[in-house]
Amino acid sequence: MTRVAIIGAAGYTGLELIRMLLRHPEVEITTLSDRLEGQPHVGTIHPSLIGRLDLRLETLTPAEIVARAECVFCCLPHGVSATVVPQLLDGGAKVVDLSADYRLKDPESYAHWYNQKHPDPERLGKVAYGLPELFRQEIRGSRLVANPGCFPTSAILPLAPLLKKGLIEPRGIIIDSKTGVSGAGRTPKLTTHYPECNESVSAYNIGRHRHTPEIDQILSRVAGQDVEVIFSPHLIPMDRGILTTTYSIPTRDLTEEELLQTLREFYKEEPFVRVVPHLPATKDSMNTNFCDITARIVRGRVVTISCLDNLIKGASGAAVQNFNILYDYPETLALL
Amino acid sequence: MTRVAIIGAAGYTGLELIRMLLRHPEVEITTLSDRLEGQPHVGTIHPSLIGRLDLRLETLTPAEIVARAECVFCCLPHGVSATVVPQLLDGGAKVVDLSADYRLKDPESYAHWYNQKHPDPERLGKVAYGLPELFRQEIRGSRLVANPGCFPTSAILPLAPLLKKGLIEPRGIIIDSKTGVSGAGRTPKLTTHYPECNESVSAYNIGRHRHTPEIDQILSRVAGQDVEVIFSPHLIPMDRGILTTTYSIPTRDLTEEELLQTLREFYKEEPFVRVVPHLPATKDSMNTNFCDITARIVRGRVVTISCLDNLIKGASGAAVQNFNILYDYPETLALL
Amino acid sequence: MTRVAIIGAAGYTGLELIRMLLRHPEVEITTLSDRLEGQPHVGTIHPSLIGRLDLRLETLTPAEIVARAECVFCCLPHGVSATVVPQLLDGGAKVVDLSADYRLKDPESYAHWYNQKHPDPERLGKVAYGLPELFRQEIRGSRLVANPGCFPTSAILPLAPLLKKGLIEPRGIIIDSKTGVSGAGRTPKLTTHYPECNESVSAYNIGRHRHTPEIDQILSRVAGQDVEVIFSPHLIPMDRGILTTTYSIPTRDLTEEELLQTLREFYKEEPFVRVVPHLPATKDSMNTNFCDITARIVRGRVVTISCLDNLIKGASGAAVQNFNILYDYPETLALL
Amino acid sequence: MTRVAIIGAAGYTGLELIRMLLRHPEVEITTLSDRLEGQPHVGTIHPSLIGRLDLRLETLTPAEIVARAECVFCCLPHGVSATVVPQLLDGGAKVVDLSADYRLKDPESYAHWYNQKHPDPERLGKVAYGLPELFRQEIRGSRLVANPGCFPTSAILPLAPLLKKGLIEPRGIIIDSKTGVSGAGRTPKLTTHYPECNESVSAYNIGRHRHTPEIDQILSRVAGQDVEVIFSPHLIPMDRGILTTTYSIPTRDLTEEELLQTLREFYKEEPFVRVVPHLPATKDSMNTNFCDITARIVRGRVVTISCLDNLIKGASGAAVQNFNILYDYPETLALL
Repeated sequence: MTRVAIIGAAGYTGLELIRMLLRHPEVEITTLSDRLEGQPHVGTIHPSLIGRLDLRLETLTPAEIVARAECVFCCLPHGVSATVVPQLLDGGAKVVDLSADYRLKDPESYAHWYNQKHPDPERLGKVAYGLPELFRQEIRGSRLVANPGCFPTSAILPLAPLLKKGLIEPRGIIIDSKTGVSGAGRTPKLTTHYPECNESVSAYNIGRHRHTPEIDQILSRVAGQDVEVIFSPHLIPMDRGILTTTYSIPTRDLTEEELLQTLREFYKEEPFVRVVPHLPATKDSMNTNFCDITARIVRGRVVTISCLDNLIKGASGAAVQNFNILYDYPETLALL
Repeated sequence: MTRVAIIGAAGYTGLELIRMLLRHPEVEITTLSDRLEGQPHVGTIHPSLIGRLDLRLETLTPAEIVARAECVFCCLPHGVSATVVPQLLDGGAKVVDLSADYRLKDPESYAHWYNQKHPDPERLGKVAYGLPELFRQEIRGSRLVANPGCFPTSAILPLAPLLKKGLIEPRGIIIDSKTGVSGAGRTPKLTTHYPECNESVSAYNIGRHRHTPEIDQILSRVAGQDVEVIFSPHLIPMDRGILTTTYSIPTRDLTEEELLQTLREFYKEEPFVRVVPHLPATKDSMNTNFCDITARIVRGRVVTISCLDNLIKGASGAAVQNFNILYDYPETLALL
Repeated sequence: MTRVAIIGAAGYTGLELIRMLLRHPEVEITTLSDRLEGQPHVGTIHPSLIGRLDLRLETLTPAEIVARAECVFCCLPHGVSATVVPQLLDGGAKVVDLSADYRLKDPESYAHWYNQKHPDPERLGKVAYGLPELFRQEIRGSRLVANPGCFPTSAILPLAPLLKKGLIEPRGIIIDSKTGVSGAGRTPKLTTHYPECNESVSAYNIGRHRHTPEIDQILSRVAGQDVEVIFSPHLIPMDRGILTTTYSIPTRDLTEEELLQTLREFYKEEPFVRVVPHLPATKDSMNTNFCDITARIVRGRVVTISCLDNLIKGASGAAVQNFNILYDYPETLALL
Repeated sequence: MTRVAIIGAAGYTGLELIRMLLRHPEVEITTLSDRLEGQPHVGTIHPSLIGRLDLRLETLTPAEIVARAECVFCCLPHGVSATVVPQLLDGGAKVVDLSADYRLKDPESYAHWYNQKHPDPERLGKVAYGLPELFRQEIRGSRLVANPGCFPTSAILPLAPLLKKGLIEPRGIIIDSKTGVSGAGRTPKLTTHYPECNESVSAYNIGRHRHTPEIDQILSRVAGQDVEVIFSPHLIPMDRGILTTTYSIPTRDLTEEELLQTLREFYKEEPFVRVVPHLPATKDSMNTNFCDITARIVRGRVVTISCLDNLIKGASGAAVQNFNILYDYPETLALL
């Protein structure tokens, strides 16, 4: 049994973490933390949890948190997370960080894309990237895991095997992603105000989205050479789900069956990647930790389609999966 | 040709007014006003209007506005509107006020329901209520029209004929309304944040909604006796549209055909009320100035169903209809 | 461990049953049945289940089904269910019937509302109505349970305690319900075609919906006198969820606190009814087996608001709850 | 004044045509045709038109139609249209054909992509493609116009100027489109059943969509060399709107400002193309005949984003625009 805390528990990833961890037979949620006036009951902030969990969202110091929990799920904004995580680690806790703060290896790249100096630059480059399908061994020995971004997971899972096997060119890879609105978080903004984004699709942050260097870094590592992707996210009028379509150039003549077989072989032991022959819909993986992947050859291009739930496999589900690895629990516990 | 101004032009009712007035052959929109930093171009605030109208949203005094416009559509919040309207009238303009400030006759009722003293109490009781189907003559001679609330229009149109003819009891009338999210305005709030209200229905302000005294007042006037309604609004995951279901007690044995015939007869000359035999959907009147009405007898109760677009017949369309009456233009101009 | 079969497994209630039963530690799903060409794999019909369950949807006789399963969840259409259930019972199985066939006590009422003769009329009146909050003891000793309709559950749970305690008049109760589209089933129809029902609300089957006699019957039994409700369902553009607003007349002066206290007291031992002080949204109970209830006094009327997930507490979740009771498993197993 | 008929008036493009033509001062809609039992009133099929148009949807021969109308809008399915259009032309009518039947120049390509022999192959290659922004002169002299597909318009408008000016490579152009559900027509199917496609995104017909050869053909003509696009459509949970993202390789170093300037220059006289600096949303052009376009340079690739309403600029609005050209009315009549 592991005692866990969730920091930043008032947001959507916090809510999903609580939902899953309540089903986890080896977890006791002892602590919820956030900065809210009056330290409200979790049921006030997340009415769906009424009767499920009797805790307040407290404003706590790192020291208070590690006194109550062995493992901390950190759902703070980037820039803030890296000011708290060092103290949690020093206090003896293991941490799954859902922010972007420990994903990049390079403080300069962080400074460039996030417009701020990294608060804990020495640690960069030494933190496991929490994509178990690629880095399970690194995660296993870690005390801090950088939980991947939702778009990166949706793009890396279909592309990594093809790059690793040298089946596609590392240059000119196009990633066109479509995401539900919960990906923008729980703070009201005009762009996510219902009558603005409902019945509408729009692209945003074209060429400037912060998940770009994260995808580059992991795919470069996998490919063994520099990868620079063209990444375009689009906002879709739905709560949750990401569908990512990628376009790349094969290095030789390929059939769809070869592509699918490569993907199937690569993920044959993976409990949460489903390589499917049909074109998947985001609804197929909604509320699950699955990522569904398929591939096509279109006029000499490799096209992959991948779907996942941005709040589960794209965030909190992956975090629980990483937690299970960190504590040597069966990896699918609380996730099926 | 009439020169018009729109105050509070950055919101949804402002946008709909502009859209309709651009189609109005007798209108020149000369002035848009709102309190926004930098006095932005209307296309910056409403991208759908790019190439349609070349005006800025200026921060203007009432004196500046009346210097440019004979008629002012006032889309300010309640409480603010009544501080500006007197100056617009004094300056010689006619005003269609889309706020709630001049709808109630009684300053004490206003103070009770709106939690503030009315800024212009002497005028209350002397302002035409802008529901042409009931008060066309009053509107015609006016210089200020109080444009009705969206829920009141949807509830008054089906009930007024039945009360006037004495077919239903004035007591215990239940009004259960369902509205799209644009009714809450354009300011982002948690309750109208997409992932909160999408895929969800909720009731709000049960028994405390400010449209209650407005419905009471108009129905009482029509019935010739006190009417106190039980009014429950519900928020529906859609942009626009109101469906109102009312339940009342017939004063005598009634058939559905009698009910429908009464409604048909009452509205036979009305261009924007359609009495239909089937159960209407809000989509049937979406983007139009129509209100669709039907009625049923269920186990001895009278049930009415009415649908309209909250931003058109429930707000800006009605305002244009009132404008047409004020200026003696054909009432349907720009509205079909 | 209990071996279970699901008949009519291709629909939405079938899918939800499978999802929940896969989490049930005491259940083995041995058999899925439906009438589909080619007896497809469950993953072909429900892609979300790929990798989760390796069964085909077979076309099977009742005898074949009972040979493989001790308990059968029957998701067939009304009229069909009652031709199969007798054979399942004769074959020794216990049955949770999700159709309407065994809910009414009276074959004539069935014939009137369902426009057909009941295929198994002798059994009517002897079948437990599967609402554990009211009829747990009857269910416990049964071999066949009539799983309640989604609207009836949403209406009976808030009203039953008030009628039982004599706090509201049994006459003139108004039930205004709002449901997501999945309640209409999985067969494509124009009314549930996306561009028809999206961005629209409509009422349907006003005064003629088949859940009316079911609500009447249960509330009459609870009240100890005849109850005839006025029931109006409305179709809402969302996948799942029901919000039911009821209006009734108190038998004496009541405060909101008394109302809420009565409801709280009545359901204090119930794991799946949450009496809440705020106005609940359907999203709070989405994907859960909870029913959230509150109550208000508005101008001398009692107003209740209740929310549930039509596919869970309104169908498949209730069915699993009944299954747990039938087999003496903890009632919340697989439901939290 | 021109008398017009609409064939296939029961679908969504028929409805939109009627709505727009009712606002057209030079049009009298004399005839609606479709194959429906009982030849119902248009208000029965399109309740939004009740009180607006008093016509039945009749089952008529081409001869009967041309006896009542000078111009026919043909909204029949592909394969059917080309069996009727020759008779309409022979009868003396002008025709705007909204089907795909006369868009391709080559009967063999038609046979390949549409899986059937073309019923009127001689005419192919001689019909104006109804995209006024590129082919206004051809349209002007025609008696038959092939109204473009919705995806082709959204892809051709941003790409044509860049190809024509030689700014992008004609090979390897990627077109990733996102469309609302009304694009699939009004016939209920499982894929467009509300609970299937709501809250979900999916790709469909990847590499096999029938709009592919249409885009190829027009872009090849514009480029003066063979263009073969990689086209991937995606289904989005909204009623209407298409956003198309294209990716292409510049032929030389380009700045975003050059790109935007090229587009602005190309469309400077066009009333329905808006080149904008921001990233447009489909909602900006919803219910309008505008196509909004912008462009970006991302890591050496040209990315264009274009938005339009699939039922207006993507179908019925374009048809009215073509009609206005055919009859020498101001091109924007009924379209602003």
